Amino acid sequence: MDQKFKFSPSVFGSSGTVEQSSYALKAVSKGSTSVGIVASEGVVIGTATRKTSELMEPRGMQHVAPINTMIGMAYSGLSGDFRILKKHAQRCSIQNNLSNGSAVKVKEVAHCMAILMQEYTQMASARPFGVSLLIAGCDKGVPQLYDCSANGTHSTRKAIALGRNAGICTSFLESRLTENLKIEDAIDTALLALKKGYEETEAELKEGDGDDEEEDPMPTEVIQIGIAYPEGFECMDSNTVDEFYATSTYLD
Amino acid sequence: MDQKFKFSPSVFGSSGTVEQSSYALKAVSKGSTSVGIVASEGVVIGTATRKTSELMEPRGMQHVAPINTMIGMAYSGLSGDFRILKKHAQRCSIQNNLSNGSAVKVKEVAHCMAILMQEYTQMASARPFGVSLLIAGCDKGVPQLYDCSANGTHSTRKAIALGRNAGICTSFLESRLTENLKIEDAIDTALLALKKGYEETEAELKEGDGDDEEEDPMPTEVIQIGIAYPEGFECMDSNTVDEFYATSTYLD
Amino acid sequence: MDQKFKFSPSVFGSSGTVEQSSYALKAVSKGSTSVGIVASEGVVIGTATRKTSELMEPRGMQHVAPINTMIGMAYSGLSGDFRILKKHAQRCSIQNNLSNGSAVKVKEVAHCMAILMQEYTQMASARPFGVSLLIAGCDKGVPQLYDCSANGTHSTRKAIALGRNAGICTSFLESRLTENLKIEDAIDTALLALKKGYEETEAELKEGDGDDEEEDPMPTEVIQIGIAYPEGFECMDSNTVDEFYATSTYLD
Amino acid sequence: MDQKFKFSPSVFGSSGTVEQSSYALKAVSKGSTSVGIVASEGVVIGTATRKTSELMEPRGMQHVAPINTMIGMAYSGLSGDFRILKKHAQRCSIQNNLSNGSAVKVKEVAHCMAILMQEYTQMASARPFGVSLLIAGCDKGVPQLYDCSANGTHSTRKAIALGRNAGICTSFLESRLTENLKIEDAIDTALLALKKGYEETEAELKEGDGDDEEEDPMPTEVIQIGIAYPEGFECMDSNTVDEFYATSTYLD
Amino acid sequence: MDQKFKFSPSVFGSSGTVEQSSYALKAVSKGSTSVGIVASEGVVIGTATRKTSELMEPRGMQHVAPINTMIGMAYSGLSGDFRILKKHAQRCSIQNNLSNGSAVKVKEVAHCMAILMQEYTQMASARPFGVSLLIAGCDKGVPQLYDCSANGTHSTRKAIALGRNAGICTSFLESRLTENLKIEDAIDTALLALKKGYEETEAELKEGDGDDEEEDPMPTEVIQIGIAYPEGFECMDSNTVDEFYATSTYLD
Amino acid sequence: MDQKFKFSPSVFGSSGTVEQSSYALKAVSKGSTSVGIVASEGVVIGTATRKTSELMEPRGMQHVAPINTMIGMAYSGLSGDFRILKKHAQRCSIQNNLSNGSAVKVKEVAHCMAILMQEYTQMASARPFGVSLLIAGCDKGVPQLYDCSANGTHSTRKAIALGRNAGICTSFLESRLTENLKIEDAIDTALLALKKGYEETEAELKEGDGDDEEEDPMPTEVIQIGIAYPEGFECMDSNTVDEFYATSTYLD
Amino acid sequence: MDQKFKFSPSVFGSSGTVEQSSYALKAVSKGSTSVGIVASEGVVIGTATRKTSELMEPRGMQHVAPINTMIGMAYSGLSGDFRILKKHAQRCSIQNNLSNGSAVKVKEVAHCMAILMQEYTQMASARPFGVSLLIAGCDKGVPQLYDCSANGTHSTRKAIALGRNAGICTSFLESRLTENLKIEDAIDTALLALKKGYEETEAELKEGDGDDEEEDPMPTEVIQIGIAYPEGFECMDSNTVDEFYATSTYLD
Repeated sequence: MDQKFKFSPSVFGSSGTVEQSSYALKAVSKGSTSVGIVASEGVVIGTATRKTSELMEPRGMQHVAPINTMIGMAYSGLSGDFRILKKHAQRCSIQNNLSNGSAVKVKEVAHCMAILMQEYTQMASARPFGVSLLIAGCDKGVPQLYDCSANGTHSTRKAIALGRNAGICTSFLESRLTENLKIEDAIDTALLALKKGYEETEAELKEGDGDDEEEDPMPTEVIQIGIAYPEGFECMDSNTVDEFYATSTYLD
Repeated sequence: MDQKFKFSPSVFGSSGTVEQSSYALKAVSKGSTSVGIVASEGVVIGTATRKTSELMEPRGMQHVAPINTMIGMAYSGLSGDFRILKKHAQRCSIQNNLSNGSAVKVKEVAHCMAILMQEYTQMASARPFGVSLLIAGCDKGVPQLYDCSANGTHSTRKAIALGRNAGICTSFLESRLTENLKIEDAIDTALLALKKGYEETEAELKEGDGDDEEEDPMPTEVIQIGIAYPEGFECMDSNTVDEFYATSTYLD
Repeated sequence: MDQKFKFSPSVFGSSGTVEQSSYALKAVSKGSTSVGIVASEGVVIGTATRKTSELMEPRGMQHVAPINTMIGMAYSGLSGDFRILKKHAQRCSIQNNLSNGSAVKVKEVAHCMAILMQEYTQMASARPFGVSLLIAGCDKGVPQLYDCSANGTHSTRKAIALGRNAGICTSFLESRLTENLKIEDAIDTALLALKKGYEETEAELKEGDGDDEEEDPMPTEVIQIGIAYPEGFECMDSNTVDEFYATSTYLD
Repeated sequence: MDQKFKFSPSVFGSSGTVEQSSYALKAVSKGSTSVGIVASEGVVIGTATRKTSELMEPRGMQHVAPINTMIGMAYSGLSGDFRILKKHAQRCSIQNNLSNGSAVKVKEVAHCMAILMQEYTQMASARPFGVSLLIAGCDKGVPQLYDCSANGTHSTRKAIALGRNAGICTSFLESRLTENLKIEDAIDTALLALKKGYEETEAELKEGDGDDEEEDPMPTEVIQIGIAYPEGFECMDSNTVDEFYATSTYLD
Repeated sequence: MDQKFKFSPSVFGSSGTVEQSSYALKAVSKGSTSVGIVASEGVVIGTATRKTSELMEPRGMQHVAPINTMIGMAYSGLSGDFRILKKHAQRCSIQNNLSNGSAVKVKEVAHCMAILMQEYTQMASARPFGVSLLIAGCDKGVPQLYDCSANGTHSTRKAIALGRNAGICTSFLESRLTENLKIEDAIDTALLALKKGYEETEAELKEGDGDDEEEDPMPTEVIQIGIAYPEGFECMDSNTVDEFYATSTYLD
Repeated sequence: MDQKFKFSPSVFGSSGTVEQSSYALKAVSKGSTSVGIVASEGVVIGTATRKTSELMEPRGMQHVAPINTMIGMAYSGLSGDFRILKKHAQRCSIQNNLSNGSAVKVKEVAHCMAILMQEYTQMASARPFGVSLLIAGCDKGVPQLYDCSANGTHSTRKAIALGRNAGICTSFLESRLTENLKIEDAIDTALLALKKGYEETEAELKEGDGDDEEEDPMPTEVIQIGIAYPEGFECMDSNTVDEFYATSTYLD
Repeated sequence: MDQKFKFSPSVFGSSGTVEQSSYALKAVSKGSTSVGIVASEGVVIGTATRKTSELMEPRGMQHVAPINTMIGMAYSGLSGDFRILKKHAQRCSIQNNLSNGSAVKVKEVAHCMAILMQEYTQMASARPFGVSLLIAGCDKGVPQLYDCSANGTHSTRKAIALGRNAGICTSFLESRLTENLKIEDAIDTALLALKKGYEETEAELKEGDGDDEEEDPMPTEVIQIGIAYPEGFECMDSNTVDEFYATSTYLD
């Protein structure tokens, strides 16, 4: 342990929970919805951002980002905090390559992020990160999906949903997932899960406004999808997202 | 992460929001109104300051500032804080030129500012910056407009309004914006948006005073406009502002 | 004592208890149940995690981890904090080997962990670790079981249960333990103790939900078992766990 | 940004204001009144101190101080804090001369002071300075007047009043100022503005005492005046102040 | 005084007591009972731990520990804190031997411990140690007993009791002690005093449980005894404890 | 500004006052009364201490202290704090002599003290000094009297009183002071002023005691007087004080 | 001033008192009574400790301690804190001898202690010392008595009492002291003063107990006396104390 750490704002509350960790998880649960699904030949991760103004360009900002050629990352929570974590993950990947002479494993990236994020819940002189991460990649062809939570834990999942209305998405994922899911089906499922979450969010917000209009369907521009194939990670271009979305909503 | 950061005043509140970030955004929403508009051949950014005394020389202080020959910056919020950020942006631009041998991109400046501003919401031993920024420039001829928010997020926009009465300006911008906006129309639109915001602010303040006089129109001297052309960024001189203003209010 | 330690959040409350220590123990008592049993020819340690979603892969994360070829560790509490402690234990083992030229003893690992964990209850500028550890190994063939508590104490035990419903497990262990316990019986007993704790936890949570369904039996996938034989420590593979579990529940 | 800054006492309040900055401005508004006026051939700055005892020698202490041969500074607020700022301005002037080989500009001094003063509202481990400054000088013959506020902002002014009863002085200045003001008229106006402020202050304090005597006129010894001519900055000697005061009050 | 000490949590309360010191003494008064008795040819120190579970091995943990061949230490309070102090005492003994070339005196060890413990009540950035110590040894054949209190004081005693129900033990000791006490009688007295304290504690706890069963006698396994003979310090083996205990209770 | 300053306890209160400064001034106003008077050929400074017990030797402690052969210092407030400031003044005088090769001026000492004292009201990690100083000396034969206040301001005075009942002393000084005061008259005036203050203090304290005895006159032993002649500073010996006191009280 | 000092817990309260200093003085006033008396040929210092248990050996701990061959020290307050101060005084004495080549003066030791003790009331990151000191010695044959108070002041005295019931002792000392006191009379007076204080303390405590027994006389073993002769400082052995005590109580 490095002795230079100063007083941390993260201490235990009387019920045994680390309060700043719990609050950070609340920040995550208010962020954009993100989902991850392990298919038999790859991993799909994606997010749906809310478009708060016509003037925004949601696709201008990266919600799904590559860490290296093989591994990608999505998130729910504070976008400013994600920027820091993305940078850290990229540095971790490069250092690993340099010292091991081999590509970093998905598990190693997840471990590396979880170490950093735990530190901010216990020792660093700063609040925890208000972000939970999805990390996707294939190690020797085997698809891997990890989540690193704002409270410093990490786990491996068949599928997962984070952020606003994650509960609804999760139920949907549980109802649809099968063994040996094809990658195309995983994309469809991810899009539909994000749509469920998005529409629920819109409905909640309209209710808040006492506004009774019919729900608009989710515009495709709020969606970003990344796929970890055994050959490498790639962010889906917006046309392909549009095509898949058209198909998948048809299927719904 | 540098271990030397000390205890930060920015921690999570129980609802999952970073309180100092929220308060910093309030400081922004009380500052001078600023707008940014992407046209087809450039980006217009501008601010309208309140003139609190006849003795002030509003054009004496820079509210729209060039970062280098290609990129400019406007802001809403605390002017003392802006000074620090402007300096940081200029240093970031120079370092980038030195290390890359090529001109810094608008996106890179925005990223650099957002990294710093995020840091002050999580790790630095100081309050966050009470400023949101508009960063405008053209990369290889393509007009780019970024905003960096006091809470450490950054995004890219077709148009945006910040500061006092930003909501009114935004509505106006949404109603007027069209595809393939000419640069002259963007200037007119920016001036009219600033006028809307300015007059609303004056009205609010007079109401506060129980003062019933007719509204004065916005004097041109409170306005500063900068334009990022593909050839470079320039701050409009005051005569040109006056001319455009005369035209645009005529058009209104 | 190193003078560089900064202000610690751990101070005495007016009743003479170190509050952060007490709260850390609460975090432990909410964590996954873990048990440890000393048999005549080895030590069994194990944990039962709750599976909160069908999408989780409980065996994907290490709850029972080897420290070196001879010694293993299980835990109850915050998994992020455990990661740090595991790393520390491995480093402690390596350093000991380097400086002594002989394998580290179980007692030495326990001592080393307890020193670190005590420090975080008194001197380090961070909250205590929200984890209690079970450390198992054989020194010159003699089975040894230590627990290191979140409050910095360590002790040696014939058997022990930690975490959620540790009380129920402990009663069960007390009722079953005999002198000269065979290793297979110790495994059976550990599995049954974990099952008791698991089912109680499920019952409590269902009650909380006002949900009246019949209790599901504990699925074997939530269980991880490690055994310290005189020849070395090994984590039991999942098939073997399944077999033992089938037998032991039959015996119950 | 230097990472060595420690926790700052200046944080945002919930309304988006930096509380320590606001309180520092209150300290300024309780300090001696100071005024600054830009004339066509120079800048006049001056202060009126209250004489709290017959035993005080108000002219013994510098309220208007030269920074170098060309630039001078006056202030309202805490005199102890001013001493630090004056020293800093002088150092800033010398460093500028050394590194640029040319005389420092008024604007550069103002910028330098504002940078320091902003820092104490955001980052330094100390309260902000309880002082606002007037900085006067001529750059290539052009008279320049800047104010640097305790909250870290700076601006350029035709004329300004700071400190106790600054509002009354400002109104007076607004009513009297004309274009192309001669330097002698600027001195008269400054003296009369200081007199207005001084007498109002005396009246307020007498009222506080329930004391009904007639107001004493302002004694000249409480006044200090500095003038920035194109040839250089000079503090007016007390006889000249007396003469001008006699004339100006005659004119009133 | 080393200037590197940081802010201490130990400050004076308004009544002139150092609050953290008082609370640390409460932690001691809740710990296992320990006693020390000076006999004419040696010193007896001992503790009685509560056995909270059948699975515990009370003799597995050291409550009475040798510091070097001549001096031993017992304690009441937090066992994690004791581990640190024991280590410090051993280091202090070694350093003394190295620099003086002669065996450390009991008094020197007591002084060394008291210096450290005082520091944590005034200067170190940590809570005080929640432990009081008994230090026993013979200097040139003369039996010596010191206690070092959690509040940083040390004193020399003919006999002393610390920890839970220390008052009852002290009364017993006062009633039994005579001049020229033989070592065997001192052991008997220590055992009986520990028995008084132990049974009182058990009674209190049963009362708390509303449990009315007859008191169990103190099991010998909870007792640890150390004896400082002129020839050296030794921890009594458990058989000898059992024999003495049988005799002494017979005598009672 | 040195960046190493840590968090200061001195911050602004909501009314714009620096609270620790105000409280430090209260500490001064409770201290021994001190007076300073500028005569035509020198400066007289003096203090009157209360004698709280017959056993005290008031002349044993320095209340008026020489800084170097030319300059002396008196104070009101905390004597422990004065010790630090005296040392600092002496060091400041020596450094000045070393670097300038000429004797330090009274003004320079005052400036040096005020810089230090201001720092403790803004930047240092400690409370302000609870002391105000009188600094007396002759520069090239011209008598000079400065006061440095606990709040970091310094000023020059014809005469001044500090500490308990300073108001009464000041009124007396104002009523007696004339131009071209002889040094002997200044001493008489100082003694009488101290006597006024002393007797008022005694009266207040007796009233507090409900004690009605007649006032005792001020005993000369509580008085210390220092005189800055053009030739040098000297502390008056007690016999001379006695003589002057006899005369001056006769004159009263 | 060393810039490395960190935030001090000692700040001014609103009434101008340094709260931690006041509380430290309360800790002193609860400590053992100590007295000091200047005789014509030496200084007597002494303390009376309360004996809280028959098992205590009051003479085993040093309450009156030599600093070097010429100077001794007694105290009232926290014994743990005294240990630190004694060590500091001894180091101060040695350093002085080394650098000056002459024996340290009583005044220099007092000054050195007061500097340290003041520091802890203003600048050090720790509470003040809860101790007041009596320092006794002869400089060139002249007896000297200094007290250094917990609040950082020091003074010289003919006689003084500190600690519990210091007021009663002081009154007694005032009534008995004469000029040219012989050393034997000073010892008698010191013993009687300690006896007064001791018996008052016992009476108070018995009252607290509702205990009505007759007062026991003060046992001599609680007393420690040190005498600073012109030839050197010595701690009186216990037999001599007994003899003097017998005589002096006879005289009473």
